[in-house]
Amino acid sequence: MGKWYRDFGPEGDVVLSTRIRFARNIKEYPFPFRLDEDKKKELNSRIKDAILSDNENMSFIEMESVPAFQTVSLAERHLISPEFAGPSKAKALILSDEEDISIMLQEEDHLRIQAMEAGLNLEKAYEKAEKIEKDIGMVLNYAFDERIGFLTQCPTNLGTGMRASVMLHLPALTKRGLISKLSSTVSKLGLVIRGAFGEGSQPGGDIYQVSNQITLGISEKEAIFNLDSIVKQIISQERNARKELIENEDYLDSIFRAYGILKYARKLTSNEFMKLISLVRLAVAEKIIDIDIEKINAMIPDMQPATVNVRNSAILDAEERDKLRAKEVREILE
Amino acid sequence: MGKWYRDFGPEGDVVLSTRIRFARNIKEYPFPFRLDEDKKKELNSRIKDAILSDNENMSFIEMESVPAFQTVSLAERHLISPEFAGPSKAKALILSDEEDISIMLQEEDHLRIQAMEAGLNLEKAYEKAEKIEKDIGMVLNYAFDERIGFLTQCPTNLGTGMRASVMLHLPALTKRGLISKLSSTVSKLGLVIRGAFGEGSQPGGDIYQVSNQITLGISEKEAIFNLDSIVKQIISQERNARKELIENEDYLDSIFRAYGILKYARKLTSNEFMKLISLVRLAVAEKIIDIDIEKINAMIPDMQPATVNVRNSAILDAEERDKLRAKEVREILE
Repeated sequence: MGKWYRDFGPEGDVVLSTRIRFARNIKEYPFPFRLDEDKKKELNSRIKDAILSDNENMSFIEMESVPAFQTVSLAERHLISPEFAGPSKAKALILSDEEDISIMLQEEDHLRIQAMEAGLNLEKAYEKAEKIEKDIGMVLNYAFDERIGFLTQCPTNLGTGMRASVMLHLPALTKRGLISKLSSTVSKLGLVIRGAFGEGSQPGGDIYQVSNQITLGISEKEAIFNLDSIVKQIISQERNARKELIENEDYLDSIFRAYGILKYARKLTSNEFMKLISLVRLAVAEKIIDIDIEKINAMIPDMQPATVNVRNSAILDAEERDKLRAKEVREILE
Repeated sequence: MGKWYRDFGPEGDVVLSTRIRFARNIKEYPFPFRLDEDKKKELNSRIKDAILSDNENMSFIEMESVPAFQTVSLAERHLISPEFAGPSKAKALILSDEEDISIMLQEEDHLRIQAMEAGLNLEKAYEKAEKIEKDIGMVLNYAFDERIGFLTQCPTNLGTGMRASVMLHLPALTKRGLISKLSSTVSKLGLVIRGAFGEGSQPGGDIYQVSNQITLGISEKEAIFNLDSIVKQIISQERNARKELIENEDYLDSIFRAYGILKYARKLTSNEFMKLISLVRLAVAEKIIDIDIEKINAMIPDMQPATVNVRNSAILDAEERDKLRAKEVREILE
């Protein structure tokens, strides 16, 4: 399992992780939505050879062979997009053993190359993604236009094809009701703030991802610099809001109640778990509760429904899963 | 402080304590509501002498000298009736050091002699109350009629003047919604079931008192035998209901959540405390949670609002008191 979602990285009190994603397509092939199954498989095989020849510790997975609950778990752990978890033939995934590199084949584009890092670390994530991108580019020709840049199925990715995103834990700004204001501010700066699972998803556990929107007429470096600066401002706002909030005795009370419930409950839905863990994570980050924060970080994906199933090699009904989740959480917090 | 409300007595899983109360009046004096202040004081003084000459470890307290918050605490600890806590001159209290004997002077009657015991122990409580009653009877003449028995201001106490009552913790019967049925059953048997603080009080913490209603045409022994038998049936019903309830996973979940909140909350109102401690007391009695049950028993009176103030020698506002209560509860459960 990946360390990137567990480790305490730079600015780890607020930033869970960083991700760089490149959308790429191969010149000789139509975009996936116009590509038939055989051609997709042929292309997948070529991409696989291009990557695996140069990169050990990578696995090629045909998505058809993955049971549905495991597919959903991959999405819960942000290794694939929620869309990629849906049914459609000839999709494949190339995944590093550390789960810090994941390449979706035949998602919206032929290739979605992703690299993840713990905390705020855009540069390192960029380097890792770029290395994979170059390895493939040595063997296959990317669809590229001198004037526009990389060609992608959706025009919003044209140009760099790069989406840089940072996963932020913003309980204090959420509590203060400042997210919608933040959202409209960052959108003016070419960024977007969303729930942890992308467009339209609920910000469970007060976790948000902030990412660049603009890929055209801007270099990767500029986009990353821009995102990095704005994220640092958000971090600073969140920290200030936390300082105020932890002086509030009702809030402290709700933190400790959350901790008490997590330590003792016999049943926890994933929604409740996310609400409670958000309060506890803030307290741990602010050194109000003394637990290894990496334990908390790891629980966030680990306690998602399908991931609970996968870890226990069983498809449990909601009731059984809520009991098992509570048991596992108790054991971790003991 | 008294041990009777803390100790685990007979049938202590369900029964908190037993109380015997005698209503008595002195022949030569009108009932309190027709007695003037000077006469009350004169009578009090005579009663005081009658008791204190024969009983060491007893204190005579003029209620006028007791600050209001301490008076309320006495009522919270069931050492006086809630009515006795109200303002009115020339009331006095004689209290044993162990707080297991309490004699209210100039309540509704000249004398309300009470003896308390842990658990279900009507006989022992009766013996203690009877000893005091006889000691006073050696010196002063009780208002007594050969045909009716002891004379009391309210006709409901005429005859034996005895009220025997048992404090029961009935979380399972409450949860099952069986209290109102129980109430109508026991009333047919000459008993009454009420909240812990008597007539009209809410059964906070699922604590009820069951007591005899009939004092006329029945001997003390019969009344006690009757109460004892019916209480034993209620105990048996409660135990059966508990056995079922603790098999219910949602109920177990609520028990452990209650425990988690008590162990970690930073603020607890007395209402919430009573709800939570009731769940935890059941779990402790049923050996689901391993804590000394006497700690739990002691907390029930100790965490009442005025008693928190008295213990901390301060009149705290509700907010401060809720914080202090939570702190004390945490320390006890640590």
